[in-house]
Amino acid sequence: MYIGIDVGGTNIKIASFDGLSNPKIVEFEKFDVNNDYKLDLKNILHTVDKLSSEELKGVGIGIPGTLEDENKEVVICPNLLDWNGRKIVHDLENEFTCPVKAENDTTLAAIGEATYGGGRDQEFVFFIWGTAIGGTEIKLSGGKLVVDRFEPGHQIVEGGKELEAIVGGAGIKRNFGKGAEDLEEENWNKILPVMAKGITNVLVVRPTKLVIFGGGVALNKSEKVYRLRSLLKDYLKIYPVPKFKISSLGEHAALFGALTLFE
Amino acid sequence: MYIGIDVGGTNIKIASFDGLSNPKIVEFEKFDVNNDYKLDLKNILHTVDKLSSEELKGVGIGIPGTLEDENKEVVICPNLLDWNGRKIVHDLENEFTCPVKAENDTTLAAIGEATYGGGRDQEFVFFIWGTAIGGTEIKLSGGKLVVDRFEPGHQIVEGGKELEAIVGGAGIKRNFGKGAEDLEEENWNKILPVMAKGITNVLVVRPTKLVIFGGGVALNKSEKVYRLRSLLKDYLKIYPVPKFKISSLGEHAALFGALTLFE
Repeated sequence: MYIGIDVGGTNIKIASFDGLSNPKIVEFEKFDVNNDYKLDLKNILHTVDKLSSEELKGVGIGIPGTLEDENKEVVICPNLLDWNGRKIVHDLENEFTCPVKAENDTTLAAIGEATYGGGRDQEFVFFIWGTAIGGTEIKLSGGKLVVDRFEPGHQIVEGGKELEAIVGGAGIKRNFGKGAEDLEEENWNKILPVMAKGITNVLVVRPTKLVIFGGGVALNKSEKVYRLRSLLKDYLKIYPVPKFKISSLGEHAALFGALTLFE
Repeated sequence: MYIGIDVGGTNIKIASFDGLSNPKIVEFEKFDVNNDYKLDLKNILHTVDKLSSEELKGVGIGIPGTLEDENKEVVICPNLLDWNGRKIVHDLENEFTCPVKAENDTTLAAIGEATYGGGRDQEFVFFIWGTAIGGTEIKLSGGKLVVDRFEPGHQIVEGGKELEAIVGGAGIKRNFGKGAEDLEEENWNKILPVMAKGITNVLVVRPTKLVIFGGGVALNKSEKVYRLRSLLKDYLKIYPVPKFKISSLGEHAALFGALTLFE
């Protein structure tokens, strides 16, 4: 049995899997993140314990930030500041006898989609539209995945502001006083053209035939993603507008991706 | 003896080279482009003839557009419309007994810089700031170059306009009524912040430690490129500001790159 953990800016998801080949989720839980490392770690350990019905062979964890020291330490975690500088792999290794590995959450989600989801055998840009905005490009080279993470949310768009600050999930909450799930049509009419420009700016720098969308906003508002694609035709002139897909693994993408750390 | 030809939006450059290993330019000429394919071709043939003091072993040509049919036909050439749809390789093969090969000019310039210039043994983003704005990323994989061209000039910046339309060489001429070489300080004060945002938007999508600049505007106004780098610190927050270099091969970069078509 393997455990996947996905620490996000809003919640933490944990799944137990039956194995690595053609894996299936045995149990799944999701709970709030507190941005209090010790409390979050306690909740993670408690939940892993609850979901582990068999001997653990590996625990993989996705972190919404940058890791160093051979991916053992969180060095920058902009949306969970109390996780900055934490030795997460070390702290989990203290609790488990199996191997523990960590990786950036966007990278894991893209690799999950490329390995077990709708991106299998394809080259694509994985675009995360959740609390934050992230991106990873998957290319294939001799049957192997070439994985390139980038930060589209930090591009400068209207009025010198960053894309994420305007239309990321947290930005939407700040700017419109409510979450993406409660927005009205007039709010979307302001958000979607900004996002369409932001995606255009990604696509002229990383041309691709397929964009797969993940992240809470995209997963819960998939009809907006398809409206985005129509808007794109007004902005993207130099390349054909690519196909848009919603992540087939949905909110489980990074959990599946965590399994690939043990292949 | 090899010939490199670089067809640009403003002029055509041609050089003869003494060979492929540690190549040196024997003779060089530069003349206006007419956006009249037959006339341009006639001028190219005349100049190649003049510069060819020995038997030709290869003629390589860079085109400011997109090639298809195994790089034998120009399919889109936005700044030289009369070159659209022209079978340039076929037309040159009719005149020479040696092999003729074509490639996009930005790609050739980046490969030239990576093979014979200041980008040797390094990974970098090559940013062309000339009549048009172009980009190519060079990565190294097992000692080999991995070359990825993209179109940063077509990103959407201020007021829904494309970057190139505002601050590309041709755009500058349209917007300010004079070329980059004649601009005044107040013009640059408008241009540089827009370009700094444009470069930021490239760097968040293609993070790199080194940007090498080519193209007429950058080569003739290198002090503006270094001012750009200081401005970048206001916009690029998520990654360290990379090193900036001016192409060491200058206006010859694509000509050197053309040699690599015969390696």
